Amino acid sequence: MKTFIVHAHPEPESLNGSLTDLAVSTLEKAGHEVQVSDLYAMNWKAAVDAEDYGPHASNPLKVPLDSGRAFLAGELTPDVRAEQEKLLWADTVIFQFPLWWYSMPAILKGWVDRVFTYRFAYGVGEHSATRYGERFGEGTLAGRKALLSVTVGGPESHYGPRGINGPIDDVLFPIQHGILYYPGIEVLPPFVRYGTDRLGEGAYADVAKAWEERLLTLESTPPIAFRRQNFGDYEIPSLHLKEGLEPAGRTGFGLHVRS
Amino acid sequence: MKTFIVHAHPEPESLNGSLTDLAVSTLEKAGHEVQVSDLYAMNWKAAVDAEDYGPHASNPLKVPLDSGRAFLAGELTPDVRAEQEKLLWADTVIFQFPLWWYSMPAILKGWVDRVFTYRFAYGVGEHSATRYGERFGEGTLAGRKALLSVTVGGPESHYGPRGINGPIDDVLFPIQHGILYYPGIEVLPPFVRYGTDRLGEGAYADVAKAWEERLLTLESTPPIAFRRQNFGDYEIPSLHLKEGLEPAGRTGFGLHVRS
Repeated sequence: MKTFIVHAHPEPESLNGSLTDLAVSTLEKAGHEVQVSDLYAMNWKAAVDAEDYGPHASNPLKVPLDSGRAFLAGELTPDVRAEQEKLLWADTVIFQFPLWWYSMPAILKGWVDRVFTYRFAYGVGEHSATRYGERFGEGTLAGRKALLSVTVGGPESHYGPRGINGPIDDVLFPIQHGILYYPGIEVLPPFVRYGTDRLGEGAYADVAKAWEERLLTLESTPPIAFRRQNFGDYEIPSLHLKEGLEPAGRTGFGLHVRS
Repeated sequence: MKTFIVHAHPEPESLNGSLTDLAVSTLEKAGHEVQVSDLYAMNWKAAVDAEDYGPHASNPLKVPLDSGRAFLAGELTPDVRAEQEKLLWADTVIFQFPLWWYSMPAILKGWVDRVFTYRFAYGVGEHSATRYGERFGEGTLAGRKALLSVTVGGPESHYGPRGINGPIDDVLFPIQHGILYYPGIEVLPPFVRYGTDRLGEGAYADVAKAWEERLLTLESTPPIAFRRQNFGDYEIPSLHLKEGLEPAGRTGFGLHVRS
């Protein structure tokens, strides 16, 4: 595999830091190639602004159009171009981050906001009576797999089907489906560790063992069965799921996963 | 009202910029007090790091504990303290932002990550057999209301009950329930405008009229009926919703809204 790890935690000596270090050593020992973007170490700029698009920045700024023009001209900033090149190089992308306020840390959201530009990650492909662009199963990053490795402070029960935070699959849906599957990446079931605010000293060995097992079986793990957009499941252009495709009683985000 | 507007868009001459300007003028004309945090204009630092906690930063850094110690000592950085004070001053908080990749722009997520510290927004209240801290309906910011005003590039049908992006209520749940209701803020139904990537010149007048109407009726608008955590609906400490409380067939995030 060619594995690209995007790492977002401010403390190298954290559980997140240990899991990324372990991923690098485990994958390299198994003969895989690895690149890491350690966003804090890179002092990654989180906020989208006119500087990102250089001479392609309109006045007033139009984020989608200007980012698309800068992308097509090959004139996005070097930091963003380097991340796009790593994504194109990789066949597998791992995101290592703590769940902060039910989503990614801001520095990682800023990596998405700046790297996933128009014409690269969205605004790709033609629209017709049977296609609504290339997205959700097609797109620039099709053929790749991704995996979220997430540390969660709270207990697992709070993220269960009846848990107060909502089911973890729903909490992660805007990332897994909305960010990753959108430009064509297949998404593997996430590696989620709960209760990490109170992880005992002895518990790390178990976490590390489970993580090594996931890493060494990535190639044989089936992805989440998100529905492809342009292959008959959705009305176009409303992009409503056609009636009757889901099991009885399934609603919300879960509609978009095949049984 | 004492209204605090948190504004997150890089271009003042954008729809988001116009909506914030209109909110200020409309509310002030109606006799309300208004403060605005324009995060781009403030050059808001998005990434949580050890500098946020000064002498309270441990080595290795512990984000929750260190942020809580710095908060209790009154020694968070001045930018963060100022935002906490605005939240405590306000009775109504408006968030104006574009939906980027199904969530907030990074600069706004970084406002949450840095301002919503331990002991201020979470880690508040005691745990017992009948209470799991003060959160989801109780907490430091109880007694306040919030409203998301969100511009969305795509069409409304894509965010409907069967739409490919998932229902807008679910897309916004991690923000409305996970970020705002968690520290006690009641959340009003959001003001969402769709198709804003292709908004015609004439369309702004309609958007502005609808926005003014929402602003002038905030005080009489009932909040979303999220379930309070410590008042009988949940098992403690699993925080599973007790069986039988929801209408038949309701699942996922929707469980946590009363009928």
